[in-house]
Amino acid sequence: MTAVAELKEILAEVADVGRAAGLLSWDQETYMPAGGVASRAHQVSTLRRLSHGRFTSAETARLLERAEAETQSLDYDSDDRSLVRVTQRDFGYAVKLPPDLVAEQASAVTTARPVWITARAESDWKIFEPAMQRTVELARRVADAYGYEDSPYDALVGRGEPGLTSADVSRLFDDLKAVIPPLVQRARQAGGLDDKLLYGDFDEARQLAFAERTISRLGFDLDSGRQDLSAHPFCTSFGPGDVRLTTRVSRQHFPQCLFGSIHEAGHGMYNQGLPDRLDRTPLWGGATSGVHESQSRLWENLVGRSRPFTRWLFPLVQAEFGGAFRQASAEDFYRAVNVVQPSYIRVEADEITYNLHILMRCEIERDLIEGRLAVRDVPEAWNAKLSEYLGLSAPPDADGALQDIHWTSPSLAGFVGYTVGNVIGAQLMEAIRIALPELDAELEVGEFAPLLGWLRDNVHTHGRKFTPNELLERVTGSPLSAGPWVAYVRRKYGDLYGLAD
Amino acid sequence: MTAVAELKEILAEVADVGRAAGLLSWDQETYMPAGGVASRAHQVSTLRRLSHGRFTSAETARLLERAEAETQSLDYDSDDRSLVRVTQRDFGYAVKLPPDLVAEQASAVTTARPVWITARAESDWKIFEPAMQRTVELARRVADAYGYEDSPYDALVGRGEPGLTSADVSRLFDDLKAVIPPLVQRARQAGGLDDKLLYGDFDEARQLAFAERTISRLGFDLDSGRQDLSAHPFCTSFGPGDVRLTTRVSRQHFPQCLFGSIHEAGHGMYNQGLPDRLDRTPLWGGATSGVHESQSRLWENLVGRSRPFTRWLFPLVQAEFGGAFRQASAEDFYRAVNVVQPSYIRVEADEITYNLHILMRCEIERDLIEGRLAVRDVPEAWNAKLSEYLGLSAPPDADGALQDIHWTSPSLAGFVGYTVGNVIGAQLMEAIRIALPELDAELEVGEFAPLLGWLRDNVHTHGRKFTPNELLERVTGSPLSAGPWVAYVRRKYGDLYGLAD
Repeated sequence: MTAVAELKEILAEVADVGRAAGLLSWDQETYMPAGGVASRAHQVSTLRRLSHGRFTSAETARLLERAEAETQSLDYDSDDRSLVRVTQRDFGYAVKLPPDLVAEQASAVTTARPVWITARAESDWKIFEPAMQRTVELARRVADAYGYEDSPYDALVGRGEPGLTSADVSRLFDDLKAVIPPLVQRARQAGGLDDKLLYGDFDEARQLAFAERTISRLGFDLDSGRQDLSAHPFCTSFGPGDVRLTTRVSRQHFPQCLFGSIHEAGHGMYNQGLPDRLDRTPLWGGATSGVHESQSRLWENLVGRSRPFTRWLFPLVQAEFGGAFRQASAEDFYRAVNVVQPSYIRVEADEITYNLHILMRCEIERDLIEGRLAVRDVPEAWNAKLSEYLGLSAPPDADGALQDIHWTSPSLAGFVGYTVGNVIGAQLMEAIRIALPELDAELEVGEFAPLLGWLRDNVHTHGRKFTPNELLERVTGSPLSAGPWVAYVRRKYGDLYGLAD
Repeated sequence: MTAVAELKEILAEVADVGRAAGLLSWDQETYMPAGGVASRAHQVSTLRRLSHGRFTSAETARLLERAEAETQSLDYDSDDRSLVRVTQRDFGYAVKLPPDLVAEQASAVTTARPVWITARAESDWKIFEPAMQRTVELARRVADAYGYEDSPYDALVGRGEPGLTSADVSRLFDDLKAVIPPLVQRARQAGGLDDKLLYGDFDEARQLAFAERTISRLGFDLDSGRQDLSAHPFCTSFGPGDVRLTTRVSRQHFPQCLFGSIHEAGHGMYNQGLPDRLDRTPLWGGATSGVHESQSRLWENLVGRSRPFTRWLFPLVQAEFGGAFRQASAEDFYRAVNVVQPSYIRVEADEITYNLHILMRCEIERDLIEGRLAVRDVPEAWNAKLSEYLGLSAPPDADGALQDIHWTSPSLAGFVGYTVGNVIGAQLMEAIRIALPELDAELEVGEFAPLLGWLRDNVHTHGRKFTPNELLERVTGSPLSAGPWVAYVRRKYGDLYGLAD
């Protein structure tokens, strides 16, 4: 038996346990009764500790060394050499974490979730403060364990998006900051768009069923996945045939369920597109959170909020929901779902201001982990940045620093991936438009297979083989760059708001 | 640190992994998409193998030995001495099973489930035959590993119901066989009852909501549990605050959902009544399947189908469902839910004929495992016994040998527990009636706390400390005996059918 084959047996077990832990978390967000939290925290942390122990064993280390020798003559992008390379990277990080820290992290997430839900319901940051304190402390301990030169934040960014430094991230945000505020200002001055059409009284069960039909049309396979409700939408997968999405639904605000579902289905189709032969290995998964987000944002925005797509979608919306939609046109709908307007809630933000929401979170995360910001001062910092970047006054905590679930998790550099994803999505779309010159015409008639096929062949099929820049270089010829996204929003919103350029 | 304390740490981990595996199975029956089967089989078998490995380690063996010495001066029923005793028993069985057999068992169950669903849907035993073949082979290997004197069936019965032999089981069934057929015959001859009232058109969502309100009134805590739909109802628990029931609902046949839910809630209240201090140890659980079934059958039948309970329940049924119920009386309802009538489906059988359903399954299981019956001949054997015991002609496979989910699981002696449970339930009820002389008056006004309190204090609180006979001796002064059940059905059905005795 080769070392690679032996290694794969261990990795398959580690994957199984990880997926079981994933189900424990999915269940917590969807169906678990309130009383289950304490037991669940034990279960998740036991599973995470067991899987960490198995993965970081001396046996894995020995096999990895032998497997490297076995595979060094293979192509860089071959399955086995990539497996060894990516596993070595994961191993290098995992082995630095003491088992107790792994268990503590897992338990912290589980117990922080219900606290966050209560804090948000009561709109009181103070309730969440102790849990957030623990998040920050754990994130610091993780960063210290990983090691870093300048800032502990670097350690976390590098773990999440291999090959990217926090300097890269800063450059990216600088590029965006140079463009977004003036563009927002010009759009706001031009005016002429509004989203009144999207507010009304929409039956929740019908919204859910409509969203499910829509994502099924896009290509999300409901025999190999499902959609449920949760407080904060997410996507998680337990294998090639079992990809779970969650969504939420507002009776008053139409886009939340539909566009949220399309977003998560973008994640879900990525996972459903991973090749079976990589199953139960570290290569079975999205490249990084950022690349994963490129898929969700591409479907949600570059497709979902495009004119051709809304031309296909809107007659179906009209037929299903009637009401004010009956008097409106597809163009009205297209304009309504693309209003540029600074707002409080990230996941409901328009495409342009969205990145400012991410920027302020990244800055707060960085300041927290570097010790420049105290947990109790987060709402104040939040409101200051909200005013600076979005020109908004202080909201209640529920619509401010408590709106996202992310800070229940000690991976305290998770927001970076969202803007990275937006940018990658636009870079991919430039390549797609060259490869699929008829894309708009296809979207307009609800033909999504060519687009999904391209994504499968160029992104999904590689699983975790490549870093974001490796993948981008391979597919688009360029590394991560804000250029295509900037060009895209200038063109789209210039047209929508009639801005001369 | 004492050996007991060290042992508890290992046992807590084993419990966590077991509960995670339990969630994997619950999810498979409730929400998992069809495509998830292959991955799920890997996950369950990896978890079962890991937990088996941890439990049967040399470390556990050493600690158990030291813990026994530490606890031998404690009372027999003390937490720690009971923990050591029960863990030794579990360990003795577990250590005999090779890890691969454990993993294979787990994987077999997971993959057999969808096959059973298809086979039942198509009503074709042939489809299920290969899965059943595997079940029987695995059960034989397990029995061989456990060891036995006369029959491999003994090994499995003793594992499921410690202290009981298959000779005890035979005696029990002989006692019942002497009573049931003549009683059924007399009731059928007397006639005068019918269940037409229970057939109609009952909205499914309302049935589910009504069932949930009812079990909540009985004492099932919905903050520490929930109810979902599945093909075959069951109860499973992931900790003191997380007890899951499933049910099913028929639009046409009213009792299925309501009495099925009460049955599962009986299991659920048992688990919710286990003391927190036993959590994450082998003592946290029902004593045996048989004792567990005593709780579900007690609530379903000895309470649910009693005259005082139906007097309380029926006005609520009338108010919620109207229709034919409006013209009927509580007494009509009581009589309708107690019609004695040989029928095809075990879970819908009346209290009396139910045990004949179990008897024939037990005989088939025994013949299969002893090699006297081939898997392909099960439907034939089924139909022969159906004719002999219940006087019914051959049904389609879906309503015959394919009706129960149990044979997807290699614990091929599971049905015994059902009759054991019926009998124990009646034994307990005799003791309850002495302790709670006002029970009927309480049930009639929907006061269930005294009964639940008694069960908590006398049964639930002990968890897995005692064998069925130990528990019965302690609570009722007698070991397992068919006497109280026989007296109960003679009295109840003698009254219902006006039989002179």
